[in-house]
Amino acid sequence: MTLLLALDFGGTKLAAAIAHAGSREWVGYERALSPTNANAKTDLEIMRSLIYSLLEKAKPSAIGVSFGGPVDATTGKVRLSHHVPGWENLPLRDLLAEEFGVPVSVDNDANVAALGEHRFGAGQGYNSLFYITISTGVGGGWILNGKPWRGAEGMAGEIGHMVVDPNGPVCLCGKRGCVERLASGPYMAQDAREELEQQGNRGEVLRGLVGSNLDLITGKVVSEAAAAGDDLAVELLYRSARSLGVGIGNIANLMNPQRFVLGGSVTKAGKGWWDVVKKKARETALPEVNFEIVSAALGDDAPLWGAVALASELVL
Amino acid sequence: MTLLLALDFGGTKLAAAIAHAGSREWVGYERALSPTNANAKTDLEIMRSLIYSLLEKAKPSAIGVSFGGPVDATTGKVRLSHHVPGWENLPLRDLLAEEFGVPVSVDNDANVAALGEHRFGAGQGYNSLFYITISTGVGGGWILNGKPWRGAEGMAGEIGHMVVDPNGPVCLCGKRGCVERLASGPYMAQDAREELEQQGNRGEVLRGLVGSNLDLITGKVVSEAAAAGDDLAVELLYRSARSLGVGIGNIANLMNPQRFVLGGSVTKAGKGWWDVVKKKARETALPEVNFEIVSAALGDDAPLWGAVALASELVL
Repeated sequence: MTLLLALDFGGTKLAAAIAHAGSREWVGYERALSPTNANAKTDLEIMRSLIYSLLEKAKPSAIGVSFGGPVDATTGKVRLSHHVPGWENLPLRDLLAEEFGVPVSVDNDANVAALGEHRFGAGQGYNSLFYITISTGVGGGWILNGKPWRGAEGMAGEIGHMVVDPNGPVCLCGKRGCVERLASGPYMAQDAREELEQQGNRGEVLRGLVGSNLDLITGKVVSEAAAAGDDLAVELLYRSARSLGVGIGNIANLMNPQRFVLGGSVTKAGKGWWDVVKKKARETALPEVNFEIVSAALGDDAPLWGAVALASELVL
Repeated sequence: MTLLLALDFGGTKLAAAIAHAGSREWVGYERALSPTNANAKTDLEIMRSLIYSLLEKAKPSAIGVSFGGPVDATTGKVRLSHHVPGWENLPLRDLLAEEFGVPVSVDNDANVAALGEHRFGAGQGYNSLFYITISTGVGGGWILNGKPWRGAEGMAGEIGHMVVDPNGPVCLCGKRGCVERLASGPYMAQDAREELEQQGNRGEVLRGLVGSNLDLITGKVVSEAAAAGDDLAVELLYRSARSLGVGIGNIANLMNPQRFVLGGSVTKAGKGWWDVVKKKARETALPEVNFEIVSAALGDDAPLWGAVALASELVL
């Protein structure tokens, strides 16, 4: 039986898993945190130890890799990591191919997760879909004509830096009102903190949840406060949902995919958030443009299952 | 030699032309205005007379059709025309195939023009491009992997109704700040008229160009006034350029095509407009996302040459 090795280099965690081609169960699964002072070398060493513990004496037929940052999928070279230093221009595909003597395919996490959802999750049987992860960042991956669309230089999918409000708050990228600036967890938390520092009369629930230690506010805390009816939290959460909805509606008009598959921690914010996303997307798209917005099915394992799909393409 | 018939059903004009497969010269070319009280029946009759005068006794091997409105390209059925009544659900492909006894392919004008530019114009040799027409409306057509991408239901390409300013002026579609609302010729003219009706001290050149008859203001007049330094005209023209630039930058981030090819009357507004479009697109796209923005090469004949390309695919 064909054994496939799937690797996930996330910003804060590393995971490796093996599965037989065609199977939907892991034969083995190993996971480790990336240390706070990690660099590319330490991440690679940790990953190596995960792999060797996983494989023992077995040899995989191919390796698929999900990397949390821009990758040139044609050469398998990492461009950079936004979280971990030392990854610049690292030839990850060739490194692994040399060490393990099997074909390797590398792509960025959003593209790989899109492939995972398409092959094994909420996108099965769909010819065209856009996968969006809304978490610490906002990213996306395309399936068009049943295959990944990566763009001319592997940069496609960047819904996070689509401008939806030119008068909105300033994003790390320098522009105003990007989807990521409005919709991602850390930015919601940052805006909540700033509001609470300035105004005494709002966000009572939010303040209570963190015992007035505003540094403890995260996107998840904002979601929880919103669920408990906190006015400020609801405002920020719905602003997140609206900006994502405008982005989705714009993309529906532009590309007309069958489905949008949404994953990532912010999508766990509850029905209110989902309703606003769907409503705003529907309002933004033209009436004759049809689409569905659904929840990702593979959760945190989407990149690993996508890596299995990547690997399986190498041995067919 | 293989003779191909190309038809262009525009909103206000009708054109038919014949060319030999592989050639870049018209064997014959006929054109007529669509009357102001036109309907689908009268347009079809006029087109028939153009065709018969063109073909005399020759018979084409295939027919390609560009239609100025939404089309289901898989069935060749027109959905509707925004300009001419009576086109709703008309099976244009089957009608023509029956009358002329040859295979027919029908698609909307933006997709067909994109194909024309890809095959014969500014997109030759490019694997991925987005063609945008900025004229009475703003529309677009995709080439991805060297082939048209029409979307799940043939609706892809609608950059015109991408929202780039949620606080902008209201568009006919009901939303605020669509690219078409800000960038198209008629809307620029409308905004100029409204400003001039309200304020006495701006738009002197603009006013002079139309002898104070504000009804004569068109997008072209706004461009001319801007070229002559009119303050109001420059403001409106540059707002058009900025909104289009934001749209293009967003699309570069999202799809990462190699080229954007821009055609339509507003693109004739001069260097100032082009410079602002390019600058704003570059600012909006992420630094690592590369693309070029170039002028369409086929001008008003892009849909007809695209129709030739459509027809040629039927006989290969």
